[in-house]
Amino acid sequence: MNAETILTDWGSKLAEYFHQMFASYPTAPPRLMEAVKYSLMAGGKRLRPALVLESHRACSAGRDPNDAALAAAAAMELIHTFSLVHDDLPAMDDDDLRRGRPTNHKVFGEAAAILAGDAMVTMAFEVLARHCGDGLLIPLTRELAAASGPAGMIGGQVLDMDAEKKPANLDQLQRLHRMKTGALLTASCRMGAIAAGADARKLSALDRFGRHLGLAFQIVDDLLDQTATPQQLGKATNKDAAKGKITYPTLIGLEASQREAERNLSAALEGLGDFGAEADGLRTLAKFVVSRQV
Amino acid sequence: MNAETILTDWGSKLAEYFHQMFASYPTAPPRLMEAVKYSLMAGGKRLRPALVLESHRACSAGRDPNDAALAAAAAMELIHTFSLVHDDLPAMDDDDLRRGRPTNHKVFGEAAAILAGDAMVTMAFEVLARHCGDGLLIPLTRELAAASGPAGMIGGQVLDMDAEKKPANLDQLQRLHRMKTGALLTASCRMGAIAAGADARKLSALDRFGRHLGLAFQIVDDLLDQTATPQQLGKATNKDAAKGKITYPTLIGLEASQREAERNLSAALEGLGDFGAEADGLRTLAKFVVSRQV
Repeated sequence: MNAETILTDWGSKLAEYFHQMFASYPTAPPRLMEAVKYSLMAGGKRLRPALVLESHRACSAGRDPNDAALAAAAAMELIHTFSLVHDDLPAMDDDDLRRGRPTNHKVFGEAAAILAGDAMVTMAFEVLARHCGDGLLIPLTRELAAASGPAGMIGGQVLDMDAEKKPANLDQLQRLHRMKTGALLTASCRMGAIAAGADARKLSALDRFGRHLGLAFQIVDDLLDQTATPQQLGKATNKDAAKGKITYPTLIGLEASQREAERNLSAALEGLGDFGAEADGLRTLAKFVVSRQV
Repeated sequence: MNAETILTDWGSKLAEYFHQMFASYPTAPPRLMEAVKYSLMAGGKRLRPALVLESHRACSAGRDPNDAALAAAAAMELIHTFSLVHDDLPAMDDDDLRRGRPTNHKVFGEAAAILAGDAMVTMAFEVLARHCGDGLLIPLTRELAAASGPAGMIGGQVLDMDAEKKPANLDQLQRLHRMKTGALLTASCRMGAIAAGADARKLSALDRFGRHLGLAFQIVDDLLDQTATPQQLGKATNKDAAKGKITYPTLIGLEASQREAERNLSAALEGLGDFGAEADGLRTLAKFVVSRQV
């Protein structure tokens, strides 16, 4: 199965899951739920949920996802989408375009976009608490909170804002990427493994896979920002250079960045060395992340 | 013991708890943690944590709080403080003053204030997951998420924004208050009871207490906005009238509002009818909420 099929299949499953979730908030203001749906159902790649579900598959001898894995996949996409909505705000990156459509605050206004993002965070933790049993809720909530909080994605955002003002070296850049993008991608793999009841050895393999995949992902993101068109990406490009941001290409050049992405892909795949065909979905997704042109 | 002593005692305990919590994020960007601390340690009344801890006391025959009750108290204050930081943003209420000091975004900038609020939400769910055992984490997380999410506080915020534009009747106003303020106050009481392992009868009593206390609290808040000075409240007053907002005093007048607050206080206290001296702290806090002049 190719990456597009994997992403589309899990994406359909997730869309169905989200529709049921929306219906479970009958007393929420319709305007708020519209703003949440606008961004959550905007046709993102669903890479993080796919990583959760394929990691679950790899650690459960190819089984279909259990309730905890599905909830973790939904929670991860809620956190990712919240971060996009807040990142796009005028006070942050001030973006008008996301996934080829006007950003949330352009459609619903700034206040509604802030509140829709806030709501998605609470919904992420709620979906876990509704569908994970005793024994799984504690480790899964800890993973999600650590990956998204002050020592994870949100902390990475703060570093990223500072990075716009001052130059950084490769160490600082890697730390930023590990927090801002890597933490959520790694946690996606770890949460799928945890939902499957993986032992310490498997969990550690998925952790290694996720860390290298996260770095590869961000390097490719930096490359695409410099080389793709807004039409290809569905959002503004060349933003990094315009802001004087330090990225992989500006620090080490285009070719070395491409090599570094491929080196991390190899390391990610090595992490899966002990797995058989049940991890083929993960392997396919990893190659897709590094080879995607748009 | 009077209300000020109860609030001060639990407030000191909570401050110590928060300092330990801050130390558990050694890799978080210092700038982010400063923004979080600025608002979290700004000397709020700590009413919600005190309600958690006194509800735990009422349902545990007067025992000291267990780990789950302390975590619930901290989580509740994190959610409450996040909501203040985001409410004060230029895109929302655009307030310059909070608890007698410049608001978070006035000191750290809008982007940092948005991210500090976001971080506090993840920290709230994380503190529960770190300190609650199996069996308690599921119900406590569900309470917190439901009270703060789209059908609770955040939903109430959205209704409140809309209410600035169109007139409301008493039913709509009560619904708004139940969501925006009541949900968190009620959940504080319920979470304390749950942490104490309360049976259904006690939980239902605390629920009733919390609901009426929540309404009384909001009516008094409306009254204070109209009758107090900014110096007394430590924040701007007369904001509601300036925005043409519908409040209890504008709908039914000052005197009827005062009577309605007292009627809700009586109903709250009746809810505690089956409890003995172990609920005296809750009774004292309820009377304080309705009688506070500043």
